[in-house]
Amino acid sequence: MNYKMVAYLLGRILIIMGCLMCLPLIVALVRREPTVTGFLISVVLQLSLGLIFTVKKPSRKDFYAKEGFVIVAGVWVLTSLFSAIPYCVSGEIPSYADAFFEMVSGFTTTGATILQDIESLSYSSLFWRSFTHWIGGMGVLVFVMAVLPKEHVSQSIHIMRAEVPGPQAGKLVARMGETARILYGIYIVMTAIEVVCLMLAGLPFFDSLLNAFSTAGTGGFAVKNASIAAYNSGAVDVIITVFMALFGINFSLFYLLLTKSFIQVLKDEELHWYLGIILVSMVVIGLNIMHQYQSFWEALRYSSFQVVSLVTTTGFITADYTKWPMLSQTILIILIFIGSCAGSTGGGFKVSRVIILFKNSISEIRRQLRPRSIAPVRMSGKVMDEKVVNSVMSYLCIYIVVFIVSQLLLCFEQFSLVTNFTAVATCINNVGPGLDAVGPVENFAGFSSFSKLVLSFDMLAGRLELLPMVVLFAPSTWKRR
Amino acid sequence: MNYKMVAYLLGRILIIMGCLMCLPLIVALVRREPTVTGFLISVVLQLSLGLIFTVKKPSRKDFYAKEGFVIVAGVWVLTSLFSAIPYCVSGEIPSYADAFFEMVSGFTTTGATILQDIESLSYSSLFWRSFTHWIGGMGVLVFVMAVLPKEHVSQSIHIMRAEVPGPQAGKLVARMGETARILYGIYIVMTAIEVVCLMLAGLPFFDSLLNAFSTAGTGGFAVKNASIAAYNSGAVDVIITVFMALFGINFSLFYLLLTKSFIQVLKDEELHWYLGIILVSMVVIGLNIMHQYQSFWEALRYSSFQVVSLVTTTGFITADYTKWPMLSQTILIILIFIGSCAGSTGGGFKVSRVIILFKNSISEIRRQLRPRSIAPVRMSGKVMDEKVVNSVMSYLCIYIVVFIVSQLLLCFEQFSLVTNFTAVATCINNVGPGLDAVGPVENFAGFSSFSKLVLSFDMLAGRLELLPMVVLFAPSTWKRR
Repeated sequence: MNYKMVAYLLGRILIIMGCLMCLPLIVALVRREPTVTGFLISVVLQLSLGLIFTVKKPSRKDFYAKEGFVIVAGVWVLTSLFSAIPYCVSGEIPSYADAFFEMVSGFTTTGATILQDIESLSYSSLFWRSFTHWIGGMGVLVFVMAVLPKEHVSQSIHIMRAEVPGPQAGKLVARMGETARILYGIYIVMTAIEVVCLMLAGLPFFDSLLNAFSTAGTGGFAVKNASIAAYNSGAVDVIITVFMALFGINFSLFYLLLTKSFIQVLKDEELHWYLGIILVSMVVIGLNIMHQYQSFWEALRYSSFQVVSLVTTTGFITADYTKWPMLSQTILIILIFIGSCAGSTGGGFKVSRVIILFKNSISEIRRQLRPRSIAPVRMSGKVMDEKVVNSVMSYLCIYIVVFIVSQLLLCFEQFSLVTNFTAVATCINNVGPGLDAVGPVENFAGFSSFSKLVLSFDMLAGRLELLPMVVLFAPSTWKRR
Repeated sequence: MNYKMVAYLLGRILIIMGCLMCLPLIVALVRREPTVTGFLISVVLQLSLGLIFTVKKPSRKDFYAKEGFVIVAGVWVLTSLFSAIPYCVSGEIPSYADAFFEMVSGFTTTGATILQDIESLSYSSLFWRSFTHWIGGMGVLVFVMAVLPKEHVSQSIHIMRAEVPGPQAGKLVARMGETARILYGIYIVMTAIEVVCLMLAGLPFFDSLLNAFSTAGTGGFAVKNASIAAYNSGAVDVIITVFMALFGINFSLFYLLLTKSFIQVLKDEELHWYLGIILVSMVVIGLNIMHQYQSFWEALRYSSFQVVSLVTTTGFITADYTKWPMLSQTILIILIFIGSCAGSTGGGFKVSRVIILFKNSISEIRRQLRPRSIAPVRMSGKVMDEKVVNSVMSYLCIYIVVFIVSQLLLCFEQFSLVTNFTAVATCINNVGPGLDAVGPVENFAGFSSFSKLVLSFDMLAGRLELLPMVVLFAPSTWKRR
C-alpha cells in the first residue's frame, strides 16, 4: 500500500470538501443562524488537515486497484465524519452516531433519516443536508477528477473503476477529465431546469433548490416532515416524477444526445427495460390501488410517483404505501432491489445487471437443454463478454453475503423481520424508506448506535458497489509485505 | 421430443407407483377403513394406464436432456395427481386442489400440510402420507433406475442428471443400476434402525415407522397435530435429531464408508461446513433462547432439534420458534435457504452450492484487487471447474426469478409479507413450516386453490432443482420442428 499517495490524495479531497462546506456556512452567516460555529469548525478542520496531508508531494507514484478502493472508501467515510460535526456542535442532532448516519445517508444519496422533526432544522442545516445528496449523487471523486491535474491519470483510472456504478465502467473512461467536466455540466444544467420548473409550480426558491438537489442525487431528503406530500400539488408531483426518472438514466446517454447520436440512445437496451419496468409497475399498482382513490388517474398520480421514486432509489414520498394492497407493496420492494440504470446517480442493483442475470438464466436453461449449443448473453445487440456476466453474478453473491450479515447484526434489537429486512434493503440500495418501523412515515431514530453503524456501512457499501467497503475491512488490505 | 419413449417410461413408472400404493391399500383392508375404495380406484387407474402406455415398445430410442427433464417433471406431477385421489374419494380431504398440494408436499418431502386436524385421518391415509416422503426422499426415479433393465442406460443418465440434487451429479453415475441398489440398501437399513430406536424410546410401532419415513425423506409430515412435540420425550427428540442430521448428509459418503474410504469421508469439505453450520447455529440459538427455558441444556435440546430439522429441510417441530428472539428466527430462516448436503434426501439450496458461491465471492474480491492473479475456487482441495461455478451462479439467478414470480403470484391474497415470503421459502426449499400464517403451529389451509398450485409448483421446482419444472413450462419444449 502506497500510504503516502493515499494520504496525499485524501488531503486534496478534504480541501475541496472544506471549500464546498463554505456554502452552508455562508447560508448560516446570511441568516444569522447559530449553526455558524459548527460549520466553521468543520471547514477549518478539513482545510488544515487537507493542507497538512498535501504539503509534501509523495515521491512514489505506484498506485493500483487496492489503493483506488481504499481512497474511495476512505473519502466517503472521512467526508461523512467531518460533515456530521456541525449538527453535533449546533445540537440539532445531539448524538454523533446519529449525525454520522444522517451524513452517510446524505452522501450516499440514500435519504434515510433519523430526524423526527425535519422542519425544526435551521436553513443552513437543511441546505447542507440536501447539498450532500447533490455532491454524492455525482460522486465526490468524479468531481475531484474534473479538477485533478493531468499528471494523476493513472490514479484517476483506479478511482473511477472503484467509484463509478454499473457492470461496465470504462465506456467513458478515456479522456476522463474532459468527460467528467461534461457530465458535471449536464448535471448542473438539469438541476437548474428543475429548480425553475418547481418555482413555476409555486414552490419557494429555497424548497425548489433543495428538492432539486435531492432529486438530482436521487437522494430523498426533503424539506418537510411529510416529504413531497406536504406540497399537495399535482404539478410538483409530476415535475419531480419526471426529473427523478431522468436522473435515473445512464448519464452517458445524455452525453450521446449532446453529440447527436440519437440512434444509439434509442437502441440502448437498459433504457428500454428501465422505462418498461416503470410503465408496467405504475399501471399495475395504479389498478391495484384504484379503489383507495377517487379515480384511476388520481391513483396513477400516486403510483407513478412512488414507482419512480423507489426504482430510482430516491425515496421521496407522496403516499403512505404501507396502506396499499400486498401486491403493490411487493412490487415496490422488488423495485427497490432493481434500482436505476448503471451510470446514473441512483443506487440499487442496477437495471443492466438485472438484465444480464435474467438473460443469462435463460441462456443457462438453453445450455442445459442442448449441452452443445452456444447461448451467449446479448445486450443492445452485442454479445456480452462472459467475464462481465460472471463478475455480475459474483457481485450478486457478495451482495447477498453483505445483506445476510447485516440482517443478522440488526437482530440484537427486537424489531420485526420486515423492519430489519427492509431497513437493510433500503440502505444497501440507497433508497431511504422501507416498511413497518422504517416505513414512509417513520424514520431510523429508533435503532441503536450499533445498528446505525451497520446500516451506515450498508449505505456506503451499496453506493460504492460493495468492493471498496469490503476491501476496507479485509485484513489483507492492511498487511505489510 | 420423442413422445413415445416419454410415454413408455412414464407408463413403467405408473405401474411401479401403482404397486407401491398397494401398501396403504393393505393397511386399509387390514384395519377395515373406509379408505379402501379410494386406494383401489387409484391403484387400478395407475396400473391400467401404465399397461396401456407400455404395451408397445417404442422403436425410436433417441433420448436427450429435454426428454429427461420432461419425464422427471411429468412423473412427479402425475404421481402426485394419482396419489391425491384416495383422499378425495374418502372425503378426508374434500378439495382435490388441497389433496394435490398435500401429495406434492409429500413426494417433494416438504411436509407443508393443509390439514387442520392430522389425528382425525385414518391409519391408511396417515401411512400413505408419510410413505410418500420416503418414496420421494430417494427420488422416484433413482428407484426406477434400480429396477430399469440395462438397455435403458442412456435414458437413465439423462434422468439421473435431471433428478439427482447438487451441483455435480455424475460422481456415482457410472454403473448406475448397481449404485442405485446400494443407495437404496443404505436408505432402507438406516430407516429400519431409526424405527427400532424410536420403539426402544417408547413409541408405538406405527408412530415409529411413520416418523422414520418422514425423517428418512427429510419430509416432516407427522402423525400428531403437535408434530414431534406431542411425544414430549427427550429421547425421541435426540434420536430424531441424530437421524435427521444423518439423512441430510450426502449419501455417497455412506457409500464411501461401506467401501472403507474413511479418509475421503473425513476430507469432504461439504461435510465440515454442514456440521459446522449445525453446531454454530445450535449453540448461538441455544444461548439466545436460554432465558425462555429452565437451563442452557434444555434450550440446547430445542435449539438443536429445530436447527437440524430446518437445515435438513425436514420441518419437524418441537417448539414454537416464532416465540424465540429475532436473532434465532433470522438464523432459522437462513438455514431454510442453505438446506442440506447435495446428494442427500434434503432440499434447500444445498451446502455445497453455498460453499462454492461463498468461496467464489472471496476469489472475486481477490481478482478485483489483483486483476492479473488467478484465484480458482477449491473444494475438498481440488480446483473447481469454472463451468461448475458459473452454473451454480446461474442456478442462483433462476432460483431468484422463480422466487420473485411466486411471491408476486401469492399477492392476490391479503396475507402478510412475512407469510408470503416464508411460504415461498419453505416450499421452494422443501422445508414445511415458515413464519406468521404458515408458522410452526399453523398450516397452509388458508390459501386459495390458485396459491396452493403456485406453492405446489415451487415445491416441485425446489425438489427437482428448478430446471425440469421450468422446462416443462417453456414453450420451446413443446414446439415441433
